[in-house]
Amino acid sequence: MADRYANFANSGLGRTVVKRLGLPDPPRLRRHRAGDPLVNGPVLLGAAPGGRLSEPIRKLLGAAGAEVTDQNPDGVRVSALVLDATGITDSTGLRALYDFFHPYARSLEVSGRVLVLGTPPEATATPAEATAQRSLEGLTRSIGKEFGRGVTAQLVYVAPGGEQAVESTLRFLLSGRSAYVSGQVVRIGAGDVPAPADWDRPLDGKLALVTGAARGIGAAIARVLARDGADVIALDVPAAGDALADVANEARGRALQLDLTADDAPERLAGYLAAGPHTGVDIVVHNAGITRDKTIARMSEDRWDSVIGVNLTAPERVDDLLLERGLIGSGGRIVGVASIAGIAGNRGQTNYATSKAGVIGRVQAYAPVLLPRGITINAVAPGFIETAMTAKMPIGLREAGRRLNSMSQGGLPVDVAETIAWLASPGSATITGNVVRVCGQSLLGA
Amino acid sequence: MADRYANFANSGLGRTVVKRLGLPDPPRLRRHRAGDPLVNGPVLLGAAPGGRLSEPIRKLLGAAGAEVTDQNPDGVRVSALVLDATGITDSTGLRALYDFFHPYARSLEVSGRVLVLGTPPEATATPAEATAQRSLEGLTRSIGKEFGRGVTAQLVYVAPGGEQAVESTLRFLLSGRSAYVSGQVVRIGAGDVPAPADWDRPLDGKLALVTGAARGIGAAIARVLARDGADVIALDVPAAGDALADVANEARGRALQLDLTADDAPERLAGYLAAGPHTGVDIVVHNAGITRDKTIARMSEDRWDSVIGVNLTAPERVDDLLLERGLIGSGGRIVGVASIAGIAGNRGQTNYATSKAGVIGRVQAYAPVLLPRGITINAVAPGFIETAMTAKMPIGLREAGRRLNSMSQGGLPVDVAETIAWLASPGSATITGNVVRVCGQSLLGA
Repeated sequence: MADRYANFANSGLGRTVVKRLGLPDPPRLRRHRAGDPLVNGPVLLGAAPGGRLSEPIRKLLGAAGAEVTDQNPDGVRVSALVLDATGITDSTGLRALYDFFHPYARSLEVSGRVLVLGTPPEATATPAEATAQRSLEGLTRSIGKEFGRGVTAQLVYVAPGGEQAVESTLRFLLSGRSAYVSGQVVRIGAGDVPAPADWDRPLDGKLALVTGAARGIGAAIARVLARDGADVIALDVPAAGDALADVANEARGRALQLDLTADDAPERLAGYLAAGPHTGVDIVVHNAGITRDKTIARMSEDRWDSVIGVNLTAPERVDDLLLERGLIGSGGRIVGVASIAGIAGNRGQTNYATSKAGVIGRVQAYAPVLLPRGITINAVAPGFIETAMTAKMPIGLREAGRRLNSMSQGGLPVDVAETIAWLASPGSATITGNVVRVCGQSLLGA
Repeated sequence: MADRYANFANSGLGRTVVKRLGLPDPPRLRRHRAGDPLVNGPVLLGAAPGGRLSEPIRKLLGAAGAEVTDQNPDGVRVSALVLDATGITDSTGLRALYDFFHPYARSLEVSGRVLVLGTPPEATATPAEATAQRSLEGLTRSIGKEFGRGVTAQLVYVAPGGEQAVESTLRFLLSGRSAYVSGQVVRIGAGDVPAPADWDRPLDGKLALVTGAARGIGAAIARVLARDGADVIALDVPAAGDALADVANEARGRALQLDLTADDAPERLAGYLAAGPHTGVDIVVHNAGITRDKTIARMSEDRWDSVIGVNLTAPERVDDLLLERGLIGSGGRIVGVASIAGIAGNRGQTNYATSKAGVIGRVQAYAPVLLPRGITINAVAPGFIETAMTAKMPIGLREAGRRLNSMSQGGLPVDVAETIAWLASPGSATITGNVVRVCGQSLLGA
């Protein structure tokens, strides 16, 4: 699992060698640790004239203890460049992007943050405004590739009326929790969202179910949700029993052994959840997934069926029954785990990519259906994450996966888990229908 | 402009060397030549039970002179695998994909075609059906990466009621005209579309305006639209006068020297078009575009302004005035030229990527507005195309661009032009709001 090259590149000798030879230079990414402040330095906040977000953001950041400044004449290091671009109503107004980023591009610290906030194109007043707002994505994705040094760049579309709902997202994207998320477009819907009593434990009192929790990314999800205050049910197949028990213990939660592809599994799970003590479940994370790679010409029926069954049909059956029984209620959160392969396709993974494209399809299909019930559904799409699985890849493929992204390194399971925790937060009540890649802005895509 | 490596790999000695060393093996792509049949061999047509497209497609292909077959027990070479997947209504039904492609995957000829036809997820009856239909994209994108040998794979979503409108798209995607288009998702809307009198000259009687027509991709667009029967106005800046005159002569059209960024340019163009002989214009192709690459920290104001101005603001101003004056009427076609950089972002191209993301934004914003007026708006997004511009790239970057796609080679200007001609066809009246990459299924994306 160790990225030995990254360790070397960050050593005293390594830094010199890497610079001299022009080798990939994976920075040590800032990741969240308990007690960390939101940011490590001032946040430079700009706005295109007429924007509606800079004042709410200024207040919110101030209340969160961040120093906010409007200018930076002396070029001191800042932790984030945040631009309210909602005031841009046509393409000539895009000049505000240049005016803000040109002078300040070099002032960001390592693992600094770039956030551009806009209006969803579909919620604008004119096609010219929609066009200009859609243009923002070309800027943020380019900045993500250009700035390097662990800097992440995102575009956050805030629907009109969603100005008071941005806090959970700003806290995620500005902090070390989003270390491996870059080049993403996030949509926040309209509505006011009450702030949690304690931003360090936003999931207090919530019950979370995590499937595939015995190891790797699933174990990290269980740990992070528990850290954020949730009671966790760690679910995995019976064969993973010992590892599962360890994870459940660590998360001070419960272990549930169940093969979700069994015919009666949804019924048994529903029974388990209905039995209490907490009736129903607040957060469902469909992390369980398998790969059975082969080209389709060489693939057995079983490899096709098992991958579709575990990755797609099982989560569908579980959600359908839990929703039907009212075991996921208002305030509920469903989070799927897709994959870059589900976005871009992959050689040897027709089965896996089909299943993961389906996970994205579920998010898009169910978001409007569940919104009136107060339930959100979103997905994360991991790129190259350092796990026991990727450690077994051939070295060429592994090194390509690690380096072909804006961070020049693989992500960690905790990076996926933090992203899920953000989507699961009560503060993210108006975020639904999103698919967020956790890939360090991998070059791969569609 | 020559891809010397591809020429070598396709020579007698080259084939041996490439195979022995396991080097990239760019096949010679089948491209359309006058008089070519639609396909070079039988089309194998399958259907998931309950589909609504296989019968219309069978008739249409038969009428187009293609041999259609339902099975291939002897494993003869086929030119295309076409699957009607509209009958798939939930994830368990996805098994039909395996059942069709597993046995036949190896029977495709070089430059063969894979088409999967589905229902747009947003037009399905249930979330489970939407999910399954969305899953198809994972399959086609994976097949595109897996099959190699110049095989292309696409997903075509046909809205209910669009069954009679698929012909222009099938003719494009099955033929050599789509040689460098792969891994794409195309949406066809509802409505009946009259067939042109002559499929070799679908643009007979149409007037087409092509901007940036003096060279490269723009010149190829002018030539292909003229070949398909259109009268062409080839527009470029006055400095390109001689080259522009040559293109106009070759296309038996008119040359129009105009700097579209000038304040009065839209007015002058509108006057020119209103003067006749053909009042107004049927097809507008916004191909003119420039790059002025620099990181944003080093970029001058002028580099920002000129790229946004030429690539985005000028087409907006032109369309706004032509539409306002009724110079683009019912049956009109607007086609923009975006770029992979506008989708994925690119280092050193904040200005260019912002402008090209805006081109995509225009398509999305104007498609619903123009649909009731009988006008479509779409865009193509070229990847690595062999032009004088790419010939000047540093060899490492050039070779990466050429090889990092499913065709292992760059595309040609004609590939972009053929794609535009398809979108401009009267047969594509229900195709709007699409962004189609012409990139050989480049690995790069978002």
